[in-house]
Amino acid sequence: MACAEIVSVGTEHLLGQVLHTNATYLCTVLADLGIAVYYRSTVGDNARRVQDVFLHALSRVDLVISTGGLGPTDDDLTVAAVAEALGLPLEVDEEAWAHVQAFFRRRNRPMTGQQRKQAMLPRGARMIPNTRGSAPGVIVEHGGKTLVFLPGVPREMRGMMEDHVVPYLRARGLAGGEVIRSRILRVTGLGESAVEDRVRDLMRAGLNPTIAPYAHTGECHLRVTARGTEPEVERLLVEAEAVLRERLGDAVYAVGETPLEEVVARALAAHRLSIALAESCTAGLVARRLARTPGASTYLDGGIVAYSNEAKRRWLRVPGELLERHGAVSAEVARAMAESARAQARTDLGLATTGIAGPGGATPEKPVGLVFIALAHAGGTDVHEMRYGTEPGREGVQYLASQTALDLIRLHLLRLGR
Amino acid sequence: MACAEIVSVGTEHLLGQVLHTNATYLCTVLADLGIAVYYRSTVGDNARRVQDVFLHALSRVDLVISTGGLGPTDDDLTVAAVAEALGLPLEVDEEAWAHVQAFFRRRNRPMTGQQRKQAMLPRGARMIPNTRGSAPGVIVEHGGKTLVFLPGVPREMRGMMEDHVVPYLRARGLAGGEVIRSRILRVTGLGESAVEDRVRDLMRAGLNPTIAPYAHTGECHLRVTARGTEPEVERLLVEAEAVLRERLGDAVYAVGETPLEEVVARALAAHRLSIALAESCTAGLVARRLARTPGASTYLDGGIVAYSNEAKRRWLRVPGELLERHGAVSAEVARAMAESARAQARTDLGLATTGIAGPGGATPEKPVGLVFIALAHAGGTDVHEMRYGTEPGREGVQYLASQTALDLIRLHLLRLGR
Repeated sequence: MACAEIVSVGTEHLLGQVLHTNATYLCTVLADLGIAVYYRSTVGDNARRVQDVFLHALSRVDLVISTGGLGPTDDDLTVAAVAEALGLPLEVDEEAWAHVQAFFRRRNRPMTGQQRKQAMLPRGARMIPNTRGSAPGVIVEHGGKTLVFLPGVPREMRGMMEDHVVPYLRARGLAGGEVIRSRILRVTGLGESAVEDRVRDLMRAGLNPTIAPYAHTGECHLRVTARGTEPEVERLLVEAEAVLRERLGDAVYAVGETPLEEVVARALAAHRLSIALAESCTAGLVARRLARTPGASTYLDGGIVAYSNEAKRRWLRVPGELLERHGAVSAEVARAMAESARAQARTDLGLATTGIAGPGGATPEKPVGLVFIALAHAGGTDVHEMRYGTEPGREGVQYLASQTALDLIRLHLLRLGR
Repeated sequence: MACAEIVSVGTEHLLGQVLHTNATYLCTVLADLGIAVYYRSTVGDNARRVQDVFLHALSRVDLVISTGGLGPTDDDLTVAAVAEALGLPLEVDEEAWAHVQAFFRRRNRPMTGQQRKQAMLPRGARMIPNTRGSAPGVIVEHGGKTLVFLPGVPREMRGMMEDHVVPYLRARGLAGGEVIRSRILRVTGLGESAVEDRVRDLMRAGLNPTIAPYAHTGECHLRVTARGTEPEVERLLVEAEAVLRERLGDAVYAVGETPLEEVVARALAAHRLSIALAESCTAGLVARRLARTPGASTYLDGGIVAYSNEAKRRWLRVPGELLERHGAVSAEVARAMAESARAQARTDLGLATTGIAGPGGATPEKPVGLVFIALAHAGGTDVHEMRYGTEPGREGVQYLASQTALDLIRLHLLRLGR
């Protein structure tokens, strides 16, 4: 299996100003090609230190892919510094020069004279066209090792990687017979430790596939990573998913990148059911999440953000007597809100949230993190009492309440479907 | 000026599964101490490669700080691998052992026997207490160089850095007389290129302070970074901020980390003004953003998410005739929505959004990205027509509309204050 190092060039990376999303992306692409990434390095716009990083990388891996430092300014020195370290003279590459000029013509931008630098390639190098920006990429074969230089702009870098570098690496035989591929199971309604308790025996080091949990607010992602030939990997992933679904049941709400709100949106559309909302502590967050998916108007009628008690009385017609007797944060008020939204909007479902997001507003009986969530449907109204505690903080409680609310809709629709 | 390398240990970093937030944080802390970060490196849980990274780091910098690989499992091998490479025997450190045991007692967790490993330190090393987790950190002084080992859990790592490592580096004299410090000016209502046009002469490389723009959805952050002694840096930052404010005027909405919704929330509270919302295309996002700030109930009454036309008629009493004549996405309907929310809720302000987030729903006259935003106030109702285009995508248009809506409130309150 070929091994690789990813190098990020740019002083901004050393001042804590940007996250390394490029390197993260490249790791995923190389894993999928069956190329093992052994190292990642980051260095500033300094020629001597750039040279040190590349020379050390060439001493320990087969393939070095770098991002950044290909622009026209003095700071952009990656290719020139590395060419010097390798003893390769820089020469104008006519194809690269035509490419740079064409870019400026297309954009109607004047050239500043500095652009010619972007067409200077080490002798023997090949250019990688960049259809989205001015800086071409560069591939250098040297001493049996492969160096790939890409720009730092993520959109440009990704396009060049997919269109040119991946096919090149395959053609060079660097892509392995073995691949590493991951699948993510998204779980909600179970805490991270509850998830771990159910799958701990599958998480031992050294197994294939490996299974690792990643905790997020209101959900846990289980990443299953298999290694082997293409068909082996597919079989391992399918088998692992089946085992995990058996252990975790309906708590698995999706596989891959689909967020909970999209799963709920699709299920509402599939069941041809409409919904209206009555939100207090979540203050529009459930509506906003349901409206993220295109075509939301087929299931989302609308909702009331009843943040104040006055708004609960005025727009949701919650009886003042109910508010006084039980308080706005109560099962009774949640039920009344959900039923009122459903009745007023004549929708199939009505969903309500009322709770104490904090940091203020708590009493000994009603602590921060207490939230009531009600779902009114044709068969009645279910009310759930949640206690998220103070640890998640105000925004965390709001988000968790929206997550539970969406999950209650999902579970309701699952039951309808059976 | 002392120079440093940050090392992240963990195979998960090489599979593209996690972003390097630890390294980004450490860069910021070291910059503020006046320690120049020259390199960042990442390596998997492999003893030989971990040794290669640390030995090469020691050959080129004064200080190496690593995160990850301090846990009790077999995969956690950072300290043992480096100790071996440096020829330092591992010995049980009684203080570290007491620390690990105390952690398990506090949490009422059984110890598994593997924990003793966490108390094995290289000879001559000192322990860094970890009050938030079981793995103590380690400081090793070797050949005039300093190595610091921290756990990978961000909350634990940050606490140990602030409580112990920063004071240690200062005491050792590694913190420089020069510091590097940044200040971020947050700008909205002007596109990135408009911002650059106004400050381009200040963005030349080599200036002190440096000024760099970072584009985000609906806003642009200008990062001003100054280098020098503590008082010099403060003076440079104050001066640069004054110049930038003169160039950009009211488009600068905050300095530092404060998001737009918090600026608006504070301004509403300071003016003792209340608001009610009528949201169509933003579907609760404006309400949700205004409710993020603690104490939102002092200014936020509530709102209507009028996603369907039926909801606009029913809850906002928008005349059917108005909807038919002008369409739901029109200045007239936006005005009616804002005025209705304000009148029904008897608040000082009423704000409405109606638009086409896409991808569907467009007509030749009303393209994707067209949004009307209305602000009803004591002096009348202002309606703004925005055209965000298709490029931002559905969620981008929704977010941009919420951003403009919040900014209209901010600018209205600014005018009131003058």
